[in-house]
Amino acid sequence: MVDPANTVGIPVNPTPLLKDELDIVIPTIRNLDFLEMWRPFLQPYHLIIVQDGDPTKKIHVPEGYDYELYNRNDINRILGPKASCISFKDSACRCFGYMVSKKKYIFTIDDDCFVAKDPAGKAVNALEQHIKNLLCPSTPLFFNTLYDPYREGADFVRGYPFSLREGVSTAVSHGLWLNIPDYDAPTQLVKPKERNTRYVDAVMTIPKGTLFPMCGMNLAFDRDLIGPAMYFGLMGDGQPIGRYDDMWAGWCIKVICDHLGLGVKTGLPYIYHSKASNPFVNLKKEYKGIFWQEDIIPFFQNVKLSKEATTVQQCYIELSKMVKEKLSSLDPYFDKLADAMVTWIEAWDELNPPATA
Amino acid sequence: MVDPANTVGIPVNPTPLLKDELDIVIPTIRNLDFLEMWRPFLQPYHLIIVQDGDPTKKIHVPEGYDYELYNRNDINRILGPKASCISFKDSACRCFGYMVSKKKYIFTIDDDCFVAKDPAGKAVNALEQHIKNLLCPSTPLFFNTLYDPYREGADFVRGYPFSLREGVSTAVSHGLWLNIPDYDAPTQLVKPKERNTRYVDAVMTIPKGTLFPMCGMNLAFDRDLIGPAMYFGLMGDGQPIGRYDDMWAGWCIKVICDHLGLGVKTGLPYIYHSKASNPFVNLKKEYKGIFWQEDIIPFFQNVKLSKEATTVQQCYIELSKMVKEKLSSLDPYFDKLADAMVTWIEAWDELNPPATA
Repeated sequence: MVDPANTVGIPVNPTPLLKDELDIVIPTIRNLDFLEMWRPFLQPYHLIIVQDGDPTKKIHVPEGYDYELYNRNDINRILGPKASCISFKDSACRCFGYMVSKKKYIFTIDDDCFVAKDPAGKAVNALEQHIKNLLCPSTPLFFNTLYDPYREGADFVRGYPFSLREGVSTAVSHGLWLNIPDYDAPTQLVKPKERNTRYVDAVMTIPKGTLFPMCGMNLAFDRDLIGPAMYFGLMGDGQPIGRYDDMWAGWCIKVICDHLGLGVKTGLPYIYHSKASNPFVNLKKEYKGIFWQEDIIPFFQNVKLSKEATTVQQCYIELSKMVKEKLSSLDPYFDKLADAMVTWIEAWDELNPPATA
Repeated sequence: MVDPANTVGIPVNPTPLLKDELDIVIPTIRNLDFLEMWRPFLQPYHLIIVQDGDPTKKIHVPEGYDYELYNRNDINRILGPKASCISFKDSACRCFGYMVSKKKYIFTIDDDCFVAKDPAGKAVNALEQHIKNLLCPSTPLFFNTLYDPYREGADFVRGYPFSLREGVSTAVSHGLWLNIPDYDAPTQLVKPKERNTRYVDAVMTIPKGTLFPMCGMNLAFDRDLIGPAMYFGLMGDGQPIGRYDDMWAGWCIKVICDHLGLGVKTGLPYIYHSKASNPFVNLKKEYKGIFWQEDIIPFFQNVKLSKEATTVQQCYIELSKMVKEKLSSLDPYFDKLADAMVTWIEAWDELNPPATA
């Protein structure tokens, strides 16, 4: 049985990487006691807390953390009518935090994620590993069999073209989960007792042209490179679907990263995921996604963005048009989602005006 | 520092998997003392030894192993003029063993590869892991973030399309190396002391459309599914290039597996690679490959086989025509190689006549 790591006694990191260039975004409906355990690693950073559900509820944040907190009233006030693109009663609301941040990097983590232990029993500093992943290049154009070639003790293997060894900039770092794996409701129902105990000591680039299921539980990205595509869609309250917010963002960011020549990594770091969500509730949220994805994934596999789309915003607007054109026949929801994608970009640009020359 | 495992005292596996359906192919120029260490795992299987270099030299095989051995004289006698497609004075000669085998599966291993230890210190039965890899499906169409979804304790994660969960048949299992990594000569020269000590406990499918550098040191495949494409090219004696035999085969099998809907896995098992080859000798063999691969890889990335090519042989002949057409301008060597690819298929079909109806 795996247990989370004990971080009591680990001193707060005195020289945190990118301290002034990274925000931690946490969507929540409860007190953030989980941050006690993360103190040695996360306390030096600024938090953006997106409070979901009842805005009158008071969320407790452990002392010593520097944070800003937004509830639904704040979101409505800041975005006005454009607030319609931000989901309510679903952790998809977290993407509001990406939008209001002014930093280059974002780390987002769920409030049921604890510090994992590596096989030697050492507490894993997840954020530090994400930063390493983001600061070193990706290799989407050719597979390296010894995984991340930039890691200490590794390199490119024989037969790896030298012209590709500089790699490309990394836009996204997708971390994994020990203990409760990120399964869909049917798999949760079939395997209620399965726990992930395998610590795979690897980081790898997801090859160009390959889609993956991106989980939002333990995720970091470069806002400057890919931020405007990190939209978590319309989920939860008033929507026919939930638990596909991160998947939607994952499909979108991957086709855009592939188009713009950016890298997406997966693997380390692990967090310890403490609690399985209710599979019956999940099934209700997911079931439309489970059959829609059979059409959505081939759609994304066939997306070809135009040469004219050279910014993330341009790519995202093109993608929204394709969603409207190709997926609306699946369900009127996609028509609404395509409009929300446009609203999201308008809101993003409003809060993040381009620097004047 | 990593050491090879000690296998003394491990009893010979009494119930070996696929005992009568698998041949072990070993190219060599020396006595096969390395098989002593492999006895618990490999002794039950039949060996095909391809003796390179001087045919009058007597190769010693440890007692108790069942084997057949072919030297250059045998190859010439069996293939006649078609023997020209089999390399001499290069481990590429091993592919002759694939051709004369009558079994469904092949495991090929170099004679400087020893038994590795897993992180718990247990000797790794490499062949058993290859067989597991080959007998369970691959997932080339979508990436699973928890790696091999068929492994115990793992599954498909949330967002993995259900229609793709049956996977496809696995044609190739590519294993890795602890201790001496498989580096090219320039990397060997720059990092002479680098050793691979990282045991990554994962098996994964290389996604469709992605090429990889296939190393022939620790490799298994399904002859029925992909055998005729496992040609190791023209290397060594009389050729302008060496150490690209397995790379060539890797590029060819990958585009054909992608076309035919077959899977290629990489990762576990590890072997312990004992001895770095001389980087100066390697550089001499490799240097043309190092610049040619800058054109060869884009060539393979753009290969489109026709719908009419439905067998491995048909795919391979189509590929040989493309090599002649597109790569001959690089060097006359590729014209010769394209012809040898055709000769290889003719020889393969002669030794492996299709079953009559």
